[in-house]
Amino acid sequence: MSQPVDSAVSAVRTYIENHRAAFLDDLVEWLRIPSVSAQPEHAADVRSSADWLAAKLKETGFPTAEVWETPGAPAVFADWPSDDPEAPTVLVYGHHDVQPAARTDGWDTEPFEPVIRGNRLHARGAADDKGQVFFHTLGVRAHLAATGRTTPAVHLKILVEGEEESGSPHFRDLVEEHADRLAADAVIVSDTGMWDEDTPTVCTGMRGLAECEIELHGPDQDIHSGAFGGAVPNPATAAARLIAALHDEHARVAIPGFYEGVVELTDRERELFAELPFEEERWLRTARSTATHGEAGYTTLERLWSRPTAEVNGMGSGYQGSGSKTIIPSSALVKLSFRLVAGQDPDRIEKAVRAWAADQVPAGIRCEITFGPATRPCLTPLDHPALQSVVRAMGRAFEQPVLFTRVGGSGPAADLQDVLGAPVLFLGISVPSDGWHAPNEKVELDLLVKGVETSAHLWGELAGSGQETP
Amino acid sequence: MSQPVDSAVSAVRTYIENHRAAFLDDLVEWLRIPSVSAQPEHAADVRSSADWLAAKLKETGFPTAEVWETPGAPAVFADWPSDDPEAPTVLVYGHHDVQPAARTDGWDTEPFEPVIRGNRLHARGAADDKGQVFFHTLGVRAHLAATGRTTPAVHLKILVEGEEESGSPHFRDLVEEHADRLAADAVIVSDTGMWDEDTPTVCTGMRGLAECEIELHGPDQDIHSGAFGGAVPNPATAAARLIAALHDEHARVAIPGFYEGVVELTDRERELFAELPFEEERWLRTARSTATHGEAGYTTLERLWSRPTAEVNGMGSGYQGSGSKTIIPSSALVKLSFRLVAGQDPDRIEKAVRAWAADQVPAGIRCEITFGPATRPCLTPLDHPALQSVVRAMGRAFEQPVLFTRVGGSGPAADLQDVLGAPVLFLGISVPSDGWHAPNEKVELDLLVKGVETSAHLWGELAGSGQETP
Repeated sequence: MSQPVDSAVSAVRTYIENHRAAFLDDLVEWLRIPSVSAQPEHAADVRSSADWLAAKLKETGFPTAEVWETPGAPAVFADWPSDDPEAPTVLVYGHHDVQPAARTDGWDTEPFEPVIRGNRLHARGAADDKGQVFFHTLGVRAHLAATGRTTPAVHLKILVEGEEESGSPHFRDLVEEHADRLAADAVIVSDTGMWDEDTPTVCTGMRGLAECEIELHGPDQDIHSGAFGGAVPNPATAAARLIAALHDEHARVAIPGFYEGVVELTDRERELFAELPFEEERWLRTARSTATHGEAGYTTLERLWSRPTAEVNGMGSGYQGSGSKTIIPSSALVKLSFRLVAGQDPDRIEKAVRAWAADQVPAGIRCEITFGPATRPCLTPLDHPALQSVVRAMGRAFEQPVLFTRVGGSGPAADLQDVLGAPVLFLGISVPSDGWHAPNEKVELDLLVKGVETSAHLWGELAGSGQETP
Repeated sequence: MSQPVDSAVSAVRTYIENHRAAFLDDLVEWLRIPSVSAQPEHAADVRSSADWLAAKLKETGFPTAEVWETPGAPAVFADWPSDDPEAPTVLVYGHHDVQPAARTDGWDTEPFEPVIRGNRLHARGAADDKGQVFFHTLGVRAHLAATGRTTPAVHLKILVEGEEESGSPHFRDLVEEHADRLAADAVIVSDTGMWDEDTPTVCTGMRGLAECEIELHGPDQDIHSGAFGGAVPNPATAAARLIAALHDEHARVAIPGFYEGVVELTDRERELFAELPFEEERWLRTARSTATHGEAGYTTLERLWSRPTAEVNGMGSGYQGSGSKTIIPSSALVKLSFRLVAGQDPDRIEKAVRAWAADQVPAGIRCEITFGPATRPCLTPLDHPALQSVVRAMGRAFEQPVLFTRVGGSGPAADLQDVLGAPVLFLGISVPSDGWHAPNEKVELDLLVKGVETSAHLWGELAGSGQETP
């Protein structure tokens, strides 16, 4: 690492510099499409986003670029074979749908009117995930320009789904349906991030996700809290007691069986995590929080990357307007999500949650639980050769040592691993301050360009032809 | 009781029968005014309601009928002196404001378009409290017609406030400001109910009410539950744990000091409560609930009438829309109300709640508590002569024995008792199925007429001239 800039690196940089402005114009155009998969009123926008991307991939040079239908939102698939028939096949994964966003959520500007301020591009999807999908388009062009090739050094495929922010309900079916065309020797998941602006890292695992909505029903309409208060069960209280029972006094999830099968950290993994320049005060600023809180016996990074969680994403009951309304509410709603780690199975978690909730809810309260589609956790071995290729490509772009992380978020990477039988690697240049799912989401433009450079180097590295010559 | 119908009773009935249709037309007109005091957009309606009532009381014969301003919604005062200077002075209390209501809350018809179906008049305010204020207008006319008087047998005053459903924030000031004009020997609170359609009862006490809104602040914006989940405190979880800590395993309120000073039931009071024809299954239907739940060691009636409570009226945090949003919410809101009983002081309760909440909230969560105006509890001695007058008037109207209850709801009766130094009596004909504060609120028309009759008899009873002659 820290080698002098070689000629390939410099050729890649020159090409990127010359095409950066057009690349950003294109990305801004894509970000203007509010492809919110969770909101039915944006279904047409999600489709426009897919059409836009397919056309752009064709323009980039992919001989094949198609919109793939699902029972929900469409995905995009593109394929660019190498002229070397012996080249390995690599599948890039990303998503073109985004989280809901509204100016009134606390955005300084309209979330779907991208704004560049200094080194930052602000828009919903700038980092999660359009920016990180899109850097591969300029990356592959720079790869060809710098190497003089007319096709990539690997058989390059890309699959960009449209329902990741809704839990990828049809993704596994899609992958199974098209397993032949998606077949690959390695999968590059381009939907994660790195440690921070100054510390390039490669991610080795993602947590999984199980989500549910719990409705608690009490009186069959709102009733007067004076006339009836103190003598019938209140579903808001029952909901609160259920949430309170999620964790024990050590902030461990108290659902019986929840930790069954969890792969514990090894001492070596704990040492590697501890090598990262973690500063709690700085991290808390990124988390917009004033104190850490979590499972006893684990550091903050260990809690985030290697431990499963139970979090309340939303709850509601009764009167939430101005003033007061002296009622016992008829019902209460709780939205929970569980981050899962290697060794946990979403089906087993669902069973455990249902059994636990049934035990907690008092007489007179009826409980309905609906689980959404789940995402499985995954982990990549640290010594995998393809993982080492990603580390080298990133090292050439950043000219710095590359460390290892995991990510607390979730993606359908495990489905790709399961169905395609290929190792899953993670490449991302987003940083924690980018504000995924939050108001004022952004991407750092310098890092976006490093992502382009990493992509440009990666295909040669994965083909075994990317070793720099000093 | 159960005497043959005397001539006074029959004269009252004849008069009422002849004027019932016009009386109902007037009440329906009043109910059309959506006088919701909790919603600022209805301020003009609350004022129209006051103007309407003042005009109607003048039309009824009150020589004086005025709209009294407050810093909030206006009240109505009317005064009809007796021609007997020695007559006692009686002040009737009620309110002309109503709870919020919208068709979408579950109403079968528009809440402010009154509908008569069979023996029931459905509208917001039909029972709470416009119907029960309004029966006195026909009641006093029937009293005059049946007795041949030109003025009531008592100096009759009526005060109808406009902020009862908002906790009567300016009521005590209003009563203090006008204490001279409100001076009375007894106060008749016309804002309660009776046991059921078949069991006339007189109420002897009301619970008080303290209300607060608790805001819990965590991250200063919503953050990604994957990126940060499990490592920072979640304000929705903190809110739930706070609510869960409100009650111990015996459903007793667990706030230290909450029960300090509470006047416990005597054995005689418990016996009297037990004489009422309470059927749990029937009561549960009225409560729209499937199970009772409350403080260990007390019957349902004792819980409702003599025990203080802590109830959640509303709560909200994070994403409550369709689909899912994997966030840790930035904040959570909890609306709590506490019903208070004799011996509890709202100021002491507020201090106790604040100290308790400060103890419960974890590091990293900021807690803000706002208390609204409180209502004090009150109790009338069973052997008070004016209470016995109410029992006799009701007995003549219903021709049945009159039993005793209390009411779980709250009203500003205690302020009248404190400021005016007069005993407070309760007269109401509403029944539990009337659905106060709920969709499809109604009043039973037969009972409304019994209220008119009771009012017609009451003024003579209170003046000591109402004993029937066989």
